[in-house]
Amino acid sequence: MKNNLKESPLYHIVNAKSVAFYGASNRPETMGSIILGSILSENYQGTVYPVHPREKEVKGLTAYANAAELPEIPDLVIMILPTVVVNQSLEDCGKKGIKRAIIVSGGFKEAGGEGIALEKQLLETARKYGIRLIGPNCLGVANLHSRLNSTPMMLEGEPGYIGLASQSGSFVTQMFNYLSRLGLGFSSAISVGNEADLDLVDCIEYFAACPHTKVIAIYIEGIKRGAEFIAAARKISPQKPIVALYVGGSEAGKKAAFSHTGSLSGPDQLYEGAFRQAGVVRAHSLTELFDYCWALATLPKPNGRNVVIQTHSGGPGASAADACSRNGMKLPGLSSATREALKPFLPHTASTANPVDLTFSQNQAHYFFDIPRTLMQDDTLDYLLIYLLMPENMMKVRMIDAGLSEEDAQKMVDGLIKKGVKTFAELKSVVGKPIVGFTYRSVQEKMVRQLIALGIPVFQDPERAAKAMKVVSDYYEMKARRNCN
Amino acid sequence: MKNNLKESPLYHIVNAKSVAFYGASNRPETMGSIILGSILSENYQGTVYPVHPREKEVKGLTAYANAAELPEIPDLVIMILPTVVVNQSLEDCGKKGIKRAIIVSGGFKEAGGEGIALEKQLLETARKYGIRLIGPNCLGVANLHSRLNSTPMMLEGEPGYIGLASQSGSFVTQMFNYLSRLGLGFSSAISVGNEADLDLVDCIEYFAACPHTKVIAIYIEGIKRGAEFIAAARKISPQKPIVALYVGGSEAGKKAAFSHTGSLSGPDQLYEGAFRQAGVVRAHSLTELFDYCWALATLPKPNGRNVVIQTHSGGPGASAADACSRNGMKLPGLSSATREALKPFLPHTASTANPVDLTFSQNQAHYFFDIPRTLMQDDTLDYLLIYLLMPENMMKVRMIDAGLSEEDAQKMVDGLIKKGVKTFAELKSVVGKPIVGFTYRSVQEKMVRQLIALGIPVFQDPERAAKAMKVVSDYYEMKARRNCN
Repeated sequence: MKNNLKESPLYHIVNAKSVAFYGASNRPETMGSIILGSILSENYQGTVYPVHPREKEVKGLTAYANAAELPEIPDLVIMILPTVVVNQSLEDCGKKGIKRAIIVSGGFKEAGGEGIALEKQLLETARKYGIRLIGPNCLGVANLHSRLNSTPMMLEGEPGYIGLASQSGSFVTQMFNYLSRLGLGFSSAISVGNEADLDLVDCIEYFAACPHTKVIAIYIEGIKRGAEFIAAARKISPQKPIVALYVGGSEAGKKAAFSHTGSLSGPDQLYEGAFRQAGVVRAHSLTELFDYCWALATLPKPNGRNVVIQTHSGGPGASAADACSRNGMKLPGLSSATREALKPFLPHTASTANPVDLTFSQNQAHYFFDIPRTLMQDDTLDYLLIYLLMPENMMKVRMIDAGLSEEDAQKMVDGLIKKGVKTFAELKSVVGKPIVGFTYRSVQEKMVRQLIALGIPVFQDPERAAKAMKVVSDYYEMKARRNCN
Repeated sequence: MKNNLKESPLYHIVNAKSVAFYGASNRPETMGSIILGSILSENYQGTVYPVHPREKEVKGLTAYANAAELPEIPDLVIMILPTVVVNQSLEDCGKKGIKRAIIVSGGFKEAGGEGIALEKQLLETARKYGIRLIGPNCLGVANLHSRLNSTPMMLEGEPGYIGLASQSGSFVTQMFNYLSRLGLGFSSAISVGNEADLDLVDCIEYFAACPHTKVIAIYIEGIKRGAEFIAAARKISPQKPIVALYVGGSEAGKKAAFSHTGSLSGPDQLYEGAFRQAGVVRAHSLTELFDYCWALATLPKPNGRNVVIQTHSGGPGASAADACSRNGMKLPGLSSATREALKPFLPHTASTANPVDLTFSQNQAHYFFDIPRTLMQDDTLDYLLIYLLMPENMMKVRMIDAGLSEEDAQKMVDGLIKKGVKTFAELKSVVGKPIVGFTYRSVQEKMVRQLIALGIPVFQDPERAAKAMKVVSDYYEMKARRNCN
């Protein structure tokens, strides 16, 4: 593991301060133009030099006819060019002294035939000039901090803490929207493509050292450097969790992976074993991949697997209990001391079994502070799983029904939400244990959105919450076994 | 099974044309007032008679001091009263000649102790007057057609085709929003509570005969009349699919169920066996429950388990392939005839393995019509699983970047969506095979929303799509085994 971030060969790619850009023109519909559009519209903090054989200006920027004419040696070159001209262009960049490249162009190894030779040649050129490169056949980098985005879709949402290394470009560029809807985001994401030079191993080493990254996600169709991957991941995982989605383990997944990136996938058990050895958490779907990242990055270390469920609705509570139980979590009964301490905050119809079920709508301060704090003060309870139902719009309509003006109703709802979130923030500051929410409503609703912003993961089904808690417990047990507490 | 809908004891409850309402007042914050508010704000098509000992008017309606004073014998009485006065009120209703009741009030069997005796007494009163009742300790009925809604939350969205029978009131009232977000809805939903009289068996028999209901969902904590349930479900399931979420099978689920509704749950294997015997599809989470209902209600009968995946993004395609494979679906290669027939519609970089991967943005008519039609004309392919990515907002921003005005860009995007949806509708009309979509974007986006309205289920992860397809194939195999094709 490179402990010094800047020693990573990826550092000056992901954090390039100046970029030569090959393949954009003033025709807006080409992939090159679209990607340059991404960079320019994202407030990228560096300088961009379009290179074009004929145009004097591209998208309002001065264009240069070739690498030799560039006014400085940029940190990075990005190429979206027809396959056959990539090598010569890289040669020119090498002569100029450019040391890093993202080759977006496809038609190399993944295309078979001549493409294999072209990729070999490309790598030789890179070696000749000491160029380190991502790709070919990739989407390169999305750095949510510097706003360098060499992918076709626009960044969405705030920078986050997930560092993604992906053998699919789609799972970089098409996830901006997905993550932003959950209030999550990448620190940076890297689409590695054919991995002619830099590969997944380099990426996880980079993210291990990256201060913006709290958790590392990997999308895998097939790992090239198996032994190096295991060694690197094994070092990193106790310090920074790694979650992997591997799709090459099933028959159809293996064929699809081969056809997509030419990856040679291995049997599922082989990868399963490698992940276990390396302390890598395994996800089986994209939903799980990011759910697990979310929980691992936000939740403090649990003392054990004992979950207490807090709800005011019986069905959601029972479903959550069932989901926890089926996923290896435990739901102990409450001690008589805890039951006693809860009494002042519970209606007489409430159940103090586990789930703690208030049975109806309640004092917000009790629900968001007094009850969960009391529960979390019980040493035998390790996690709080709390049901969240704050239907803003309905609350507002009811208030209008009750005679309030639209404006007053909105104010009252906003006030309740603000107060609820403030209470929850206080709770979080006094409780050092993992708190997880679940809801069947949209996580776009204001209250949930703000709880998420506080660092409380809120899942849209208790099944997802239970699986995420299991993974967090598994992760800390792995750490304990490795004596890395 | 009651083949005549009107013979069901539930018919005149779910479709009551007149309702006596006990428990609402002019204090807006009580549960009774909230529920009466639901009924009144939903354009309920029937007549409501509030009954209140003192008020002359409740929420603008003439109130009656007791049942005897009601101007007619209503179809139904709904009671949200303190436990201790429920029985006397039901007695009064019985004397008036009312034959059906929803008892929302709790404090009966589920409370233990005296509640058990109170429930017994309630049932005796009902028997004495020939009253059939839902509850106590329930939320009653939400009929999305007549807009009778005896639950606290307001209806959302359009009437749908899912008939829900639920041992949790929350899973009736709190699901209006969930389903509406997916473009789904209940035909009617029934919260059965303690099932003192009418129970889950009565509900599934009602839904079997209900013409608005295409699929029956059940939320179960414990079944009271096991043998009758199996017999009824076994008769119904080949005609109308039944999907059950049973949460009492795990240790914690069992305890939670007991504490919630006093249900005596049985071991998971027992229920698993009963469901299999009865042809009931099992879900393990609420997400699965409604996903399976969605697929079963919309997809035509598949000929087998062969899925072809269509994508323009490799990672989502490979993930979908892996998900299908892990869930028992098959991904055969394409015949050379089909590969040949696809040629005119594919870019040269495309893969005609399975997934069919176009690799980049494409002619919309090809993606939504020519390619899927060609695939579905292949006799060896049974399902189409198609990746959907129509980022409206980004499309619009790109057009504005390319020089279009905001207005023109919006028009152009709307035009593309309209054309795409029209094309897909044509496709659906010529292809008699199941078509399933998946996307990682919000299903609130216009394009997906409209495809869903056409009856195409669109899941937010291919894992969910694969599980739903598996369930559909399992269902039709069960039908075939039972010779009920």
